[in-house]
Amino acid sequence: MDHTRESRFQAIAARLGHSFDGAIQVGGHYAPVVHHGTEVYVSGQVPRVGSSLVLTGRVGTELTLIQAQTAAGICVMRALALLRQSLGSLNAVERVLRMTVYVQCSADFTQLSEVADGASDLLHEVLGEAGVHTRTSVGVYQLPKNAPVELDLIATALSEG
Amino acid sequence: MDHTRESRFQAIAARLGHSFDGAIQVGGHYAPVVHHGTEVYVSGQVPRVGSSLVLTGRVGTELTLIQAQTAAGICVMRALALLRQSLGSLNAVERVLRMTVYVQCSADFTQLSEVADGASDLLHEVLGEAGVHTRTSVGVYQLPKNAPVELDLIATALSEG
Amino acid sequence: MDHTRESRFQAIAARLGHSFDGAIQVGGHYAPVVHHGTEVYVSGQVPRVGSSLVLTGRVGTELTLIQAQTAAGICVMRALALLRQSLGSLNAVERVLRMTVYVQCSADFTQLSEVADGASDLLHEVLGEAGVHTRTSVGVYQLPKNAPVELDLIATALSEG
Repeated sequence: MDHTRESRFQAIAARLGHSFDGAIQVGGHYAPVVHHGTEVYVSGQVPRVGSSLVLTGRVGTELTLIQAQTAAGICVMRALALLRQSLGSLNAVERVLRMTVYVQCSADFTQLSEVADGASDLLHEVLGEAGVHTRTSVGVYQLPKNAPVELDLIATALSEG
Repeated sequence: MDHTRESRFQAIAARLGHSFDGAIQVGGHYAPVVHHGTEVYVSGQVPRVGSSLVLTGRVGTELTLIQAQTAAGICVMRALALLRQSLGSLNAVERVLRMTVYVQCSADFTQLSEVADGASDLLHEVLGEAGVHTRTSVGVYQLPKNAPVELDLIATALSEG
Repeated sequence: MDHTRESRFQAIAARLGHSFDGAIQVGGHYAPVVHHGTEVYVSGQVPRVGSSLVLTGRVGTELTLIQAQTAAGICVMRALALLRQSLGSLNAVERVLRMTVYVQCSADFTQLSEVADGASDLLHEVLGEAGVHTRTSVGVYQLPKNAPVELDLIATALSEG
């Protein structure tokens, strides 16, 4: 069995200085992950580690591009952790089909694709070609809990869930 | 046959003080619902009843959280009405896969998840476990016709459409 | 074989005064198109022709509704060009399931559906009934490279990719 996805995931977690190994919970009447055949829908993720957000605020005024890319990276690591938790292993991910990246930005901050690269690059680093997805990046006015970035994705699994 | 979803739907309609039993039309070259296999895509819904919006304005300044939750509830009742109209019965809904909730908010209004709960809770109330979905909530700058909330969803049906 | 979709596509390109026949590239670790069975996901498109955006700025203050509709039209022509490039022909498109349209707008610009019509109408003009999709239109705070409009879509193909 190929353990390299897991080891690359852990290497990024170490680089970010956060662990993504605990169970990820969401409150209320929705789910972090829903399966439909081989498709796996993942709920919108903010840069939360444990019970609090690692970064908050508006990109372009309160946060820099670099900080926003870090936030996007934490969001996507949460999404990967949810896929791993739901599928048993990162090796069960066949492909990431779609990622939508929302950035809480200032009126004239236009580097939204560059923020999203902070998530796309990690998907590719962990999953290789399976992590190459379609993407939409937009700048929004606010996000839950003043998050600078939120992203969701749809992936496919090697077998039905 | 199980009529409880329909009766719960009608109970919520009565609570909101609106009927969702008429045909729901959209103008232009798009459709309220499109089927693909067992998947059912539903277009973005605003809190319209009949020909006008029940609530308009920006959440956080012009509207309260409670009003925004009501608006989210009306949006999701429209989405349920469209699923019922398209599938013949709410009993034909297998699962709600994804809901995206857009809130027209003020710059510092961060309770976007709480607004979305106003829709998620009704999905669960009507559909039970089948209504437990993945979700993304974002705060946007404007919405069609000055709507405070817009939401779309993807569901699956028990049989192909 | 039916060449009318291609000829209608070319007629619109001529009307807009732009060619959409070159290869469309995206940078970074994401893809313009990803296939899953018969489903085809297309990345968010901005009104770019060649290497630069045809229109930039905020709709409602810097750009008019008409200009925004033109921008939406260019975005959707790019999406159609990507489907053609990926499937070999526009005739291979079975249906457009979903389009999401993001408009960079001013605080009080509410004609977001009208902007999106600039894209929906072209989908219908090129693809006929196959171009009738579900749609969500929202007004956002910024878009990549100061684009006035961005849109993404999911289509289905007649055969698996």
